[in-house]
Amino acid sequence: MNVVAPYLAGELSPITELRTTEEMEARLREIGAKRYHNHHPFHKLLHGGKLRKGQVQAWALNRYYYQSSIPIKDAIVISRFRDRETRIEWRHRISDHDGDVGSEGGIDRWLKLTTHLGLDEDYVTSAAGILSATRFAVDAYVNFVRDRTPLEAIASSLTELFASGIHEERISGMLANYDFVNDEVMAYFKKRLVQAPRDAGFALDYVKAHAHTPKERQAVCDALLFKTNVLWVQLDALYHAYVDGHIPPGAFVPEDMR
Amino acid sequence: MNVVAPYLAGELSPITELRTTEEMEARLREIGAKRYHNHHPFHKLLHGGKLRKGQVQAWALNRYYYQSSIPIKDAIVISRFRDRETRIEWRHRISDHDGDVGSEGGIDRWLKLTTHLGLDEDYVTSAAGILSATRFAVDAYVNFVRDRTPLEAIASSLTELFASGIHEERISGMLANYDFVNDEVMAYFKKRLVQAPRDAGFALDYVKAHAHTPKERQAVCDALLFKTNVLWVQLDALYHAYVDGHIPPGAFVPEDMR
Repeated sequence: MNVVAPYLAGELSPITELRTTEEMEARLREIGAKRYHNHHPFHKLLHGGKLRKGQVQAWALNRYYYQSSIPIKDAIVISRFRDRETRIEWRHRISDHDGDVGSEGGIDRWLKLTTHLGLDEDYVTSAAGILSATRFAVDAYVNFVRDRTPLEAIASSLTELFASGIHEERISGMLANYDFVNDEVMAYFKKRLVQAPRDAGFALDYVKAHAHTPKERQAVCDALLFKTNVLWVQLDALYHAYVDGHIPPGAFVPEDMR
Repeated sequence: MNVVAPYLAGELSPITELRTTEEMEARLREIGAKRYHNHHPFHKLLHGGKLRKGQVQAWALNRYYYQSSIPIKDAIVISRFRDRETRIEWRHRISDHDGDVGSEGGIDRWLKLTTHLGLDEDYVTSAAGILSATRFAVDAYVNFVRDRTPLEAIASSLTELFASGIHEERISGMLANYDFVNDEVMAYFKKRLVQAPRDAGFALDYVKAHAHTPKERQAVCDALLFKTNVLWVQLDALYHAYVDGHIPPGAFVPEDMR
């Protein structure tokens, strides 16, 4: 069997060293254009209405583990900075996801989606049925921002530069194609259309101002590449389990696959 | 599409609490019997001679990252113990893999295999072409022994209780079925036939002596389950990439899949 074509389209152009901020930004945009998970076949199926409800459930269930780890990740990012300005700037990311007593955040909005899809909230939040690959990939992201430099920690959030397109495609595609999805449960993505560009703008300005050497610019690009892999691995695992039908032992089995 | 049958065979019997050491050992053996990666379809293809050389290369390349992380993992395990006896007992695991100046260890033996399969040694040791899923799973194992209790760190090595069967099957199956494999390059597995049972015996005795409460016994079983997932995820990723042909961007592409 030959390699399926879209997977090979991710090849990056050869580079030697990143001499300027402009070269770094161009490289970041190339990584986004070629490696962001909007190219993944699972998303094409999801947005194109080609999945059964059980497969959409599996996606939402696994993605909850990612969503609910983001404020933990961001708390670690904040903890890496001694300068108050960066901590203050980053802080709203935690409340964007966690909300507040009496006001909902991104995690609540995600739970509206999983509940509307027919998944029990306790089961979703327990993460008992997620794929191990999801857990390992998401945990790798959390560990990355703890173990690498603060510059790389910020750079790993740069996938948000490329998020608007996929959110728009997801909102319109899922609303048009699935009768089990409605406007209200797509609230998470609508909110992100506003939040993600603002956050991405800060992160891009930050890495442009703080990556001073070719080595640091390379580290910034590698951090973004790492993050695209974190996202890609999650969709590969969903595809293998729920499209090709190789659900690993212990993971969620949708009713329509029993 | 329905779920492929072998994946559902991993269901564990319901338990309430593990009241005795005997109940814990029975549970550990059930986890091994049902969840160890000898059940994975990729191994059936590998041992049955059903893979092309490029697919065997991909397996050996990715598995090198696992092998070469084991002494790092074991060094962390040692670092978790204040008592000298446990550190002394565990120490030989590092040299089993690392060897010594002038004498080979498990990592050298693995490199003999990858070199014989036609892979460049620098490419293999750089880990540049491995699947991100391999990296995340293996790193999850290294982080597990750092972040969990010392008891869980030891318990996560208990997969070795079940390793002899798979090594024997691998040696005979691969020698019989592939003309690009010979006796010399299977040296890694032959050595493990002696090393693994000795190490597994110590680890089993240790958890039996040190897990005193139902909660601790459950944690021991969960650590083994976690480890079976670490192994399973690696084979799922190999299957998805190199059997189904969905090689993710940036990963090794065998010559016979170009």
